[in-house]
Amino acid sequence: MTLAPDLFAAVPGRVSLYEVSPRDGLQNENATVPLRGKLRLVDALVAAGLKRIEITSFVSPKWIPQLADADELAEALLAAHPTPQASSTDHLLEGQRLRFSALCPNARGLARARAAGIDEIAVFMSASETHNRKNINKSIDATLAEFEETIGPALDYGMRVRGYVSTVWGCPYEGDIDPRRAIEIALKLHEMGCYQVSLGDTIGSGTPRQTRDIMARALGELPLDSVAMHMHDTRGTALSNIIVGLEMGVRHFDASVGGMGGCPYAPGAAGNVATEDLAYMLHGMGIATGLDLERLVEAAKAAESIVGRALPGKVHQAGIRSLRA
Amino acid sequence: MTLAPDLFAAVPGRVSLYEVSPRDGLQNENATVPLRGKLRLVDALVAAGLKRIEITSFVSPKWIPQLADADELAEALLAAHPTPQASSTDHLLEGQRLRFSALCPNARGLARARAAGIDEIAVFMSASETHNRKNINKSIDATLAEFEETIGPALDYGMRVRGYVSTVWGCPYEGDIDPRRAIEIALKLHEMGCYQVSLGDTIGSGTPRQTRDIMARALGELPLDSVAMHMHDTRGTALSNIIVGLEMGVRHFDASVGGMGGCPYAPGAAGNVATEDLAYMLHGMGIATGLDLERLVEAAKAAESIVGRALPGKVHQAGIRSLRA
Repeated sequence: MTLAPDLFAAVPGRVSLYEVSPRDGLQNENATVPLRGKLRLVDALVAAGLKRIEITSFVSPKWIPQLADADELAEALLAAHPTPQASSTDHLLEGQRLRFSALCPNARGLARARAAGIDEIAVFMSASETHNRKNINKSIDATLAEFEETIGPALDYGMRVRGYVSTVWGCPYEGDIDPRRAIEIALKLHEMGCYQVSLGDTIGSGTPRQTRDIMARALGELPLDSVAMHMHDTRGTALSNIIVGLEMGVRHFDASVGGMGGCPYAPGAAGNVATEDLAYMLHGMGIATGLDLERLVEAAKAAESIVGRALPGKVHQAGIRSLRA
Repeated sequence: MTLAPDLFAAVPGRVSLYEVSPRDGLQNENATVPLRGKLRLVDALVAAGLKRIEITSFVSPKWIPQLADADELAEALLAAHPTPQASSTDHLLEGQRLRFSALCPNARGLARARAAGIDEIAVFMSASETHNRKNINKSIDATLAEFEETIGPALDYGMRVRGYVSTVWGCPYEGDIDPRRAIEIALKLHEMGCYQVSLGDTIGSGTPRQTRDIMARALGELPLDSVAMHMHDTRGTALSNIIVGLEMGVRHFDASVGGMGGCPYAPGAAGNVATEDLAYMLHGMGIATGLDLERLVEAAKAAESIVGRALPGKVHQAGIRSLRA
């Protein structure tokens, strides 16, 4: 019989996780978490070893009331964890410094982020025209044009900029998305100055063969460290898609502790992949993450207490290992 | 950068799922489901296209009261779905007839199965000495010796016999299990006449590199169609392990609708991989299963109503696709 002897030949020895629970997670909770709860969450994430944490979004409180305290939160966190100014040459995998980032939908958000002392921002758009219009009320072209007013100045200020492209694996309105179009947008964001573009399975409909096709195209167009995967576990396939990414050499993954989060404009899209589940799998494969799995489990439990509901991540429920005396 | 171009070269075009919810699922429910609930569950599974269904266990009601109606259930199901006698030459993947199997721990169980008209039985043991003793109160050697009294006569009666080896990915008492020992036991069961041996991640602790190592050994010792994977999703890794199995060519997987089941003697071991989640992933990859995904979702919902609790499978919760008008 035919084995595939080189299945794991390109699997990286180390990966970097980008934590999105304070932003992508909390913006999708029905209840608004008070500032002290957010501080407790981020402290637990830092204690678990996470170095890249998206803490909030500088968006109008009218749109996302859950994140209305963005300015106050950023200032409090930067005071508690002082970080040096950003450098675009920072290595993404080794010897990372702690870095808080924040989503900024426009120039106004950028100004708030800068005033708060944030040195990495993220911009967000969709690979689906309809989803982009429903989500940010603009066409894809208009969004890219507006990003010129965010990304350019941010880079001039010495900030690092990260891009998100959502609905790459499928759109709740349009269904299938042409991977060529999605990667074209990702490349555009990279060319505009995003050091990394995170490709999102927003509705969590992705399956592994599709992942192989999307990521082959992405890795053909973009440098390896400029590509991240942002997978939702809505249909249980997040880790199986991530395995395929790992086998292709991908080493940047977004995750959310406890599996908190989804997308309010993508119906049925519950659950980012849980940071502790992803780290459990990676550690089991001997892939370094710099994370302390026990403390990640504690962070997931803290997250549950902070949002006041059970979260779907599995490792924090089952425990790291079920050894019995 | 190095891509792995042959990642999916050995992925099969068709796989066969072996449904374990009526046995492995229901034996682990706290509540005892009445006979009419079990009939409703199996009918829903048959309607979804499942051809291989393990309906019960002919074990003492003292041990598993949930399955005390095994004789009555088997007779009722065989009357409702008459099947021809077993043939060891039946193809496992194509043109399968519906076939109900039942776990038989010993010769007494075999006699009951035969009296009920069952033509495929399963035998169950562990790769861990401690787990085997806790679970079936015998050493591994004594278990294999007793199987001689079950497997031999069953084959003489023209039955098909399937074997389970549990705790292959880890034991709740012993921790790591030597894959050589596990596959040695699997090979022994195959040599004793089991047409297929199902290797189980009983506590759901498995990760993909481990899966590659275990399955490489299994496929090196046993014919391809004699190997099945029985993965638990306790830590969310079931589908990522199955992807690796698929990439190695494995085409037989156990599953349980809704993700029902676990192991009462393996603490923390909640959840077989959900049949609908596995089928969703397989269909998304273009791998044929013969199953109707919509009806599988209906079966999972029926299972929830029958056991009276929410089940952990994801696709039956999220829906097959979240398209919105």
